[in-house]
Amino acid sequence: MINRKVRMGMIGGGEGSFIGAVHRMAANLDGEIELVCGAFSRSSENCKETGQKLYLPEERVYNSWETMIKEESKRPKGDRMDIVSIVTPNHLHAGPAIMALEHGFPVICDKPLCLSTEEALQIKDAVEASGLPFALTHTYTGYPMVKQARAMMESGELGATRKIVVEYPQGWLTDKIEDDGQKQAEWRSDPTKAGKAGAYGDIGTHAANMAEYVSGLKITRVLSQMSKIVEGRLLDDDTSALLEFEGGVPGVLICSQVSAGEENAITVKVYGTKGGVQWCQEDENTLLVKRHGAPNQIYRTGVDNSYLSEGALVHARVPSGHPEGYLEAFANIYRNFAMAVKAHANGHSHHKLYDYPSIEDGVHGMSLVDAMVASTESGNTWVRVSH
Amino acid sequence: MINRKVRMGMIGGGEGSFIGAVHRMAANLDGEIELVCGAFSRSSENCKETGQKLYLPEERVYNSWETMIKEESKRPKGDRMDIVSIVTPNHLHAGPAIMALEHGFPVICDKPLCLSTEEALQIKDAVEASGLPFALTHTYTGYPMVKQARAMMESGELGATRKIVVEYPQGWLTDKIEDDGQKQAEWRSDPTKAGKAGAYGDIGTHAANMAEYVSGLKITRVLSQMSKIVEGRLLDDDTSALLEFEGGVPGVLICSQVSAGEENAITVKVYGTKGGVQWCQEDENTLLVKRHGAPNQIYRTGVDNSYLSEGALVHARVPSGHPEGYLEAFANIYRNFAMAVKAHANGHSHHKLYDYPSIEDGVHGMSLVDAMVASTESGNTWVRVSH
Amino acid sequence: MINRKVRMGMIGGGEGSFIGAVHRMAANLDGEIELVCGAFSRSSENCKETGQKLYLPEERVYNSWETMIKEESKRPKGDRMDIVSIVTPNHLHAGPAIMALEHGFPVICDKPLCLSTEEALQIKDAVEASGLPFALTHTYTGYPMVKQARAMMESGELGATRKIVVEYPQGWLTDKIEDDGQKQAEWRSDPTKAGKAGAYGDIGTHAANMAEYVSGLKITRVLSQMSKIVEGRLLDDDTSALLEFEGGVPGVLICSQVSAGEENAITVKVYGTKGGVQWCQEDENTLLVKRHGAPNQIYRTGVDNSYLSEGALVHARVPSGHPEGYLEAFANIYRNFAMAVKAHANGHSHHKLYDYPSIEDGVHGMSLVDAMVASTESGNTWVRVSH
Amino acid sequence: MINRKVRMGMIGGGEGSFIGAVHRMAANLDGEIELVCGAFSRSSENCKETGQKLYLPEERVYNSWETMIKEESKRPKGDRMDIVSIVTPNHLHAGPAIMALEHGFPVICDKPLCLSTEEALQIKDAVEASGLPFALTHTYTGYPMVKQARAMMESGELGATRKIVVEYPQGWLTDKIEDDGQKQAEWRSDPTKAGKAGAYGDIGTHAANMAEYVSGLKITRVLSQMSKIVEGRLLDDDTSALLEFEGGVPGVLICSQVSAGEENAITVKVYGTKGGVQWCQEDENTLLVKRHGAPNQIYRTGVDNSYLSEGALVHARVPSGHPEGYLEAFANIYRNFAMAVKAHANGHSHHKLYDYPSIEDGVHGMSLVDAMVASTESGNTWVRVSH
Repeated sequence: MINRKVRMGMIGGGEGSFIGAVHRMAANLDGEIELVCGAFSRSSENCKETGQKLYLPEERVYNSWETMIKEESKRPKGDRMDIVSIVTPNHLHAGPAIMALEHGFPVICDKPLCLSTEEALQIKDAVEASGLPFALTHTYTGYPMVKQARAMMESGELGATRKIVVEYPQGWLTDKIEDDGQKQAEWRSDPTKAGKAGAYGDIGTHAANMAEYVSGLKITRVLSQMSKIVEGRLLDDDTSALLEFEGGVPGVLICSQVSAGEENAITVKVYGTKGGVQWCQEDENTLLVKRHGAPNQIYRTGVDNSYLSEGALVHARVPSGHPEGYLEAFANIYRNFAMAVKAHANGHSHHKLYDYPSIEDGVHGMSLVDAMVASTESGNTWVRVSH
Repeated sequence: MINRKVRMGMIGGGEGSFIGAVHRMAANLDGEIELVCGAFSRSSENCKETGQKLYLPEERVYNSWETMIKEESKRPKGDRMDIVSIVTPNHLHAGPAIMALEHGFPVICDKPLCLSTEEALQIKDAVEASGLPFALTHTYTGYPMVKQARAMMESGELGATRKIVVEYPQGWLTDKIEDDGQKQAEWRSDPTKAGKAGAYGDIGTHAANMAEYVSGLKITRVLSQMSKIVEGRLLDDDTSALLEFEGGVPGVLICSQVSAGEENAITVKVYGTKGGVQWCQEDENTLLVKRHGAPNQIYRTGVDNSYLSEGALVHARVPSGHPEGYLEAFANIYRNFAMAVKAHANGHSHHKLYDYPSIEDGVHGMSLVDAMVASTESGNTWVRVSH
Repeated sequence: MINRKVRMGMIGGGEGSFIGAVHRMAANLDGEIELVCGAFSRSSENCKETGQKLYLPEERVYNSWETMIKEESKRPKGDRMDIVSIVTPNHLHAGPAIMALEHGFPVICDKPLCLSTEEALQIKDAVEASGLPFALTHTYTGYPMVKQARAMMESGELGATRKIVVEYPQGWLTDKIEDDGQKQAEWRSDPTKAGKAGAYGDIGTHAANMAEYVSGLKITRVLSQMSKIVEGRLLDDDTSALLEFEGGVPGVLICSQVSAGEENAITVKVYGTKGGVQWCQEDENTLLVKRHGAPNQIYRTGVDNSYLSEGALVHARVPSGHPEGYLEAFANIYRNFAMAVKAHANGHSHHKLYDYPSIEDGVHGMSLVDAMVASTESGNTWVRVSH
Repeated sequence: MINRKVRMGMIGGGEGSFIGAVHRMAANLDGEIELVCGAFSRSSENCKETGQKLYLPEERVYNSWETMIKEESKRPKGDRMDIVSIVTPNHLHAGPAIMALEHGFPVICDKPLCLSTEEALQIKDAVEASGLPFALTHTYTGYPMVKQARAMMESGELGATRKIVVEYPQGWLTDKIEDDGQKQAEWRSDPTKAGKAGAYGDIGTHAANMAEYVSGLKITRVLSQMSKIVEGRLLDDDTSALLEFEGGVPGVLICSQVSAGEENAITVKVYGTKGGVQWCQEDENTLLVKRHGAPNQIYRTGVDNSYLSEGALVHARVPSGHPEGYLEAFANIYRNFAMAVKAHANGHSHHKLYDYPSIEDGVHGMSLVDAMVASTESGNTWVRVSH
């Protein structure tokens, strides 16, 4: 029975990490989660410094995630961490996730799930064996207007889906900065840490998840062209793909990390027989609703915009016109996961309105990585998605 | 020697036509061209009415284009039409174009050039045999900001081109309106009049031309997925394709006429090693210039914006902030073609700054149609573009 | 009885003029008006050159407007000009307009109407005495989406008007370019040629006209602050004003020619009890329709957008998504005026859907100039508008 | 000496409050502040419930702010609250603020500062007497792009300031909802709780603060028109004003809560002799930088956008393209205030880069309210700002 803040231990996220601080801010925002311990880095110095900056007691800053899971398990029930947040590079997801689950800790894990479909299925087994909540942080589905888009496509008011286009352009790998010691670039372009896919693994998986989330349709086949544009790069930095969704709906996915001058403009467009929806992260509080034969409409985030769907409303925090951004979207995933963890601990069922990406999304995402890579390797042919 | 307005005869463009009136407004705008005769329709009533509305003398309104070309040829040199404008559906381009050229009349022809690469090569032969100017109205390359985009990519200031994305979404064929007597939809979805491609033929050809114009690179191979989304439609109404440009540069083309709620938002994005350009017709006077590591910039149409390239400046008519639209872009092609016709008549060379799409663009465009169709028919494989 | 193109003579608009060429393109666009003669400049050389470039016969290029009006009057009825277009600086409007009207020629005149309310009333007397059509080229009211805005406010669907904000920022007089021989800047900043007001006279009059046109309410009182921001400038280059409209509706007008980096972004916002409209020239084909308690909507220009008002539809030329710009808006005024002239010549009444700014708008505009100047001179107090 | 999270007590912010939850999320985000106690409401039931939802120990949920300040003062030094956050309606700012300061607690207070300049000066006396940090939550100056705008105007690269326009349109008081029990509307339209000004007090004060912050210039004189548009409303719901800034720079301020269909689009435009800046909250991560004679530029929030000023960079949390919104801006004020409190407690000086609105801003803001009201009451004349 939890009737207090949910207590979180973090794996990864030491000094120099980008996503660790993001997870912590997301967890902080709503006052529902409290960071109580961490294994922030393999470097004990980094680990210690990070713990101090986060005002953690020295004894709960661990030098390895194995130690953290073991030691926390030994603490009395009311005093140990409740959940584990995993924010390490991809190759360090499966180990901690499985061990945490096996020790009875629900897990919230950064994306993509891991290195391969095989590993993904092992994590899934551990989740199922434990019966515990598990969340994958596909942040972008946490935006209220993305929830609105999904609700509108689901309701049928825009008709049956006919075409899906998703694009995720970035420019930060325009130069070969992995050679200059940029930590983020280093591991993301290293197959041993990132897995088989570069740009597709890092951001294409977000794009695919977004397209599926908004349309409510899974991708069944892909035909990809993964390119290594910057000379000497080991993984794709630019990928385009034709997609087939359930029901034969055609789609296109474009992601790139060498689109110079682009920031983070993930954009999804879903068209139905009567209209469509369009959302772009760089205008995050707006959902453009297209209407065949009528003026298009501008739906906007806001707790006071009563025309929004229930799902959009419960993921907004402030009245319309006060922008809610990336951290709020991220916080929605943490908040919902905390609710699920409490519900689980307290023996209740979790309300499906407060959704978050699941282990199934993670497994499917990894099999999409596999299919993408196989398609390019086979000379750009259609490849079926296995899971 | 022409030292007066260029005199134009028009084939097609009777009552009920959309593009005929557009050509006439474009030809009117700059006061350099005068409509003097026409064969507007096979219906003699339509033809007569159109002629009256255009204030043409009855004797120069002809019931067939064959008659018009013959009769005008018989008029004294100073009194006949100087050029022929062809604004009929695609299957009625080759015949009039070749006959006009053979009778010594330069031709400006709507796009796509004709029905097949074979026909295209016949027109090309006629152009070469005649030595006369020939223009194809790929309107969108007439916009000042498209000229600016091309100039910037050409100058190298944004680096070597790495990736090209072009999209042309429309929604007007969302329903099967070709069954309801909508004239534009009827012929565009009829293979005997439109040719082998529907959406690709109508707007995909514009998109391909735009991508090539801005980047300065020709498409060499395509892998297409042409879909007939609306049940019973005879030609593709939605096409997506992976592209390979000269030098192996990858690209994506998406065009659709069933993207409900979309109007005419052709958008091109070209990325180089140092930055990129982005232009969309629905914000036609803006060129977004992306800079790696520096703020993006907003270039704007205007005769007073001295930072623009020479090519952009000579295609603008008014000071910045006074929007120049579709008809001005179209008029640029007419104005440039009129200049070329005068230069030719007067024995001068035509200044390359005042460019317009050529017969070569037309032939290449038709072989792109062929390659697109072949790729889809072969199960979405790479097909080389023949011309 | 006119059953042909309307024949136009132009006063002003020689080489070096900006607005003369704009008027000619606007008159050309629809093929309803033909330039047949002109008195383009006091310089006979400029006059001659301009005539040649416009392909006019030498004998109809006149060295003075007095001569043009006299000589054209002498030509046989079927052969003389039908209308006079006046595109000279403000101090040269009244003379030619009155003389043209007195000789039986309808007049279309650039704005503002003239130098003073007194002069304005003299022109009005001439218009009334002649019974002839008269148009003032407040271009911006020619945009289809401005027509739509007016129609929506008039219909009452957005409730009674409560607040009006109009802004017209430009930056081209940021530096004192009137000292560098820039012809446009020279006369516009010279009280003997421009009148009592600089920025307000040039663009503030457009802004006031726009606010009144969209809301359907006249300005009754003003409280202005006219500033001469650039040292040594003789007329205001930046003006802000509180406005009172009919019924006591409050408003604000801001215009400036020293807003560095601005182009020509005239923007009007009108709010009613149930919603509002917003239009900006730099996104000219969009009308943002605001709805209290419901998503805002994007209305768009297009002959196929059947949700538009009749008035918006008859002022559009092409399907939605093909941008129509400044010259099309301007052409709408010329086209409508030509229709009125024909109707008058043929003894018909003119359809009010095809509206254009009238002599009454011109007189009111001049009395607004007077009120603005009086308010600033009296220390920023409320001044009632006389006409 | 504080080497842990700063402990906060909150006054106001019980169930039904909007801004209380906002303050708490802002305080939570960075993990630098911890809510330890509160006096959330005069209703002891509301108070208790709020405390429970926030997981506070029962004994630190107080039924009145007087009790909270007294009781917390009695706790041992290391165990009491460090700061007080005041989030009550305006009439309940001065009392708690002064008492908290007198008991040695730094104060962070919602805006506007209080009910009158007189009260404001009393608070200022208490701040000065205590020597403690005091912050006023003018949220919008916490945005990174607002910091950037200020830095650019300050640097002189856009020249000396010439014109300032600030606009803050809202539509939520379009109907007379204060009669329907809407709590936010009730107190904001009640002079005994809100003070002398309605819309101006609530949002006009933000607008004025924004204009001054970005330009670095104080408003010295105002000429206002405060309107009560909705019949029966007791305070202004729509205000427009001419402004005079230091050095005689002219400006305009428009704020409204009856602009139907508007959300929260506070927008500021500052023009200098070489260019200008424009920022709007509804596109919060973009600063439009205008350049006279060169393309305008798009500056964007992001820790990786190294072209930004130091002040903008230290107020961003994530890489560019990940939107940072209203809560992040608010959190910047809390984070900076917490830094100042720690510096003060630890005997260090506070780095001016981490700025926040001060007691001086609060006093000036109240004297602006007085001047606005006096100007309207005197028939819209210029009134000098006293402090």
